[in-house]
Amino acid sequence: MNGTTLTVQAVNHFLEEQWAYAASEHACIAVGDRFAEVRRTFNPATVRPGGIVSGPAQFALADLALWCACFTVIGLESMAVTSELSIRYLRPAPSRALIARAEIDKAGRRSIVGTIRVWSEGEPARLVSVAQGTYVRPG
Amino acid sequence: MNGTTLTVQAVNHFLEEQWAYAASEHACIAVGDRFAEVRRTFNPATVRPGGIVSGPAQFALADLALWCACFTVIGLESMAVTSELSIRYLRPAPSRALIARAEIDKAGRRSIVGTIRVWSEGEPARLVSVAQGTYVRPG
Amino acid sequence: MNGTTLTVQAVNHFLEEQWAYAASEHACIAVGDRFAEVRRTFNPATVRPGGIVSGPAQFALADLALWCACFTVIGLESMAVTSELSIRYLRPAPSRALIARAEIDKAGRRSIVGTIRVWSEGEPARLVSVAQGTYVRPG
Amino acid sequence: MNGTTLTVQAVNHFLEEQWAYAASEHACIAVGDRFAEVRRTFNPATVRPGGIVSGPAQFALADLALWCACFTVIGLESMAVTSELSIRYLRPAPSRALIARAEIDKAGRRSIVGTIRVWSEGEPARLVSVAQGTYVRPG
Repeated sequence: MNGTTLTVQAVNHFLEEQWAYAASEHACIAVGDRFAEVRRTFNPATVRPGGIVSGPAQFALADLALWCACFTVIGLESMAVTSELSIRYLRPAPSRALIARAEIDKAGRRSIVGTIRVWSEGEPARLVSVAQGTYVRPG
Repeated sequence: MNGTTLTVQAVNHFLEEQWAYAASEHACIAVGDRFAEVRRTFNPATVRPGGIVSGPAQFALADLALWCACFTVIGLESMAVTSELSIRYLRPAPSRALIARAEIDKAGRRSIVGTIRVWSEGEPARLVSVAQGTYVRPG
Repeated sequence: MNGTTLTVQAVNHFLEEQWAYAASEHACIAVGDRFAEVRRTFNPATVRPGGIVSGPAQFALADLALWCACFTVIGLESMAVTSELSIRYLRPAPSRALIARAEIDKAGRRSIVGTIRVWSEGEPARLVSVAQGTYVRPG
Repeated sequence: MNGTTLTVQAVNHFLEEQWAYAASEHACIAVGDRFAEVRRTFNPATVRPGGIVSGPAQFALADLALWCACFTVIGLESMAVTSELSIRYLRPAPSRALIARAEIDKAGRRSIVGTIRVWSEGEPARLVSVAQGTYVRPG
């Protein structure tokens, strides 16, 4: 399989089958040539002090977006796992849904590196966090 | 307040008051001179494909451990927030509770940097992830 | 001063004046709205085992490109300093000049975050490294 | 070969043979069970504006210290290469020699992760930077 034939529906179906917990809070909303976008529902239960979406929630979203972007290169592969990821928080994320867009910088034989941008739904020009990291292909 | 007077009980009481969601899965188990240890309960609901504790769950634990370590330097301060954090995954984390120990590398006027090690309960010599990052003090 | 009036010549003049060592190996080649591109001359003396441009040389280039990108936001400011930077190496960098392009993700009151891509001159589609990091504004 | 038989002299001889440029500014000063310490000579030519040792110079030192620490696990192996490294700067590094100590967090079949601390010679309690990163073993 390659990215050009991958659909948003196929990615979401795969998430629900493979990792219901993540699928309960996240949905893939766009997928294309070496990129994916994922939406994280706002969940009041997880808000951190100050009324903002927590850092770990943003990390979970960024990490999942990069996983989905990897699918555009290697197909739907549940055993691709993060080997490292760094995140920078840019401004408080208000109590709203978040969107992350992950783009692949390099897909190698063994690992895949990408860059992720995260924003509050409706405000793509005001990033709330950026991240960069590596997935390792199985085997 | 300074770290020498901070107790595990005080940290856990603070977590429950300030961020019940995080407190439901995590508890501080040790606190001392510029370090803190936090335990994350094993939660079968959040396990990722392959039966391992997910990367974002480990990140959440590492981030919380560093928050608690900051308390040993600046006191119980809910508005200290992560500005950046990078994590490296070292081996699969089996379906068990995890422990993270965060140590402060530098506490400055505006920011606090620390290093975090994460292991499966009972196996401190086999790290499952390591992280390093920065908290920013409020104001 | 703001970025729209900043020229490549002004940036290079500033580098030579402020940091002759860096200027001896690097030159800004493009500057614009929240981005900068810097070229690193190939220096056979610094090549690492295997005949490839060393990781630290790529880091120095990425860091300098982000410094120059900061100038497009805050003007020519020698005391803006890196607070953290992470780099990922994607493939061996052959014995040639390298180009880095840094783009600003967020320019805040106190800090500036950006993403950097590095390639061998003439091969912009084959990145050799990517990085992301933070500069702190003086004062 | 394993780390217990590796000597400082053997590491420095290897550096001089393999990478004279790095050896001209750096020397291994201690090596032991899963750690190494490297000293970077103060070089006035490379000082950045403000009279401080530049960030890239500290990065080069940290990276080299981790390389040497890898030797304690896999022997003298020039083709072990950095795959990613993140560094945090903690305070200005005065115009003096620097020391970095790298400790291995995990040595796996394919990659080696370690944590590095950097200080000005004579002031080990006042870190100037900390880093964490990954080397990949050849083959």
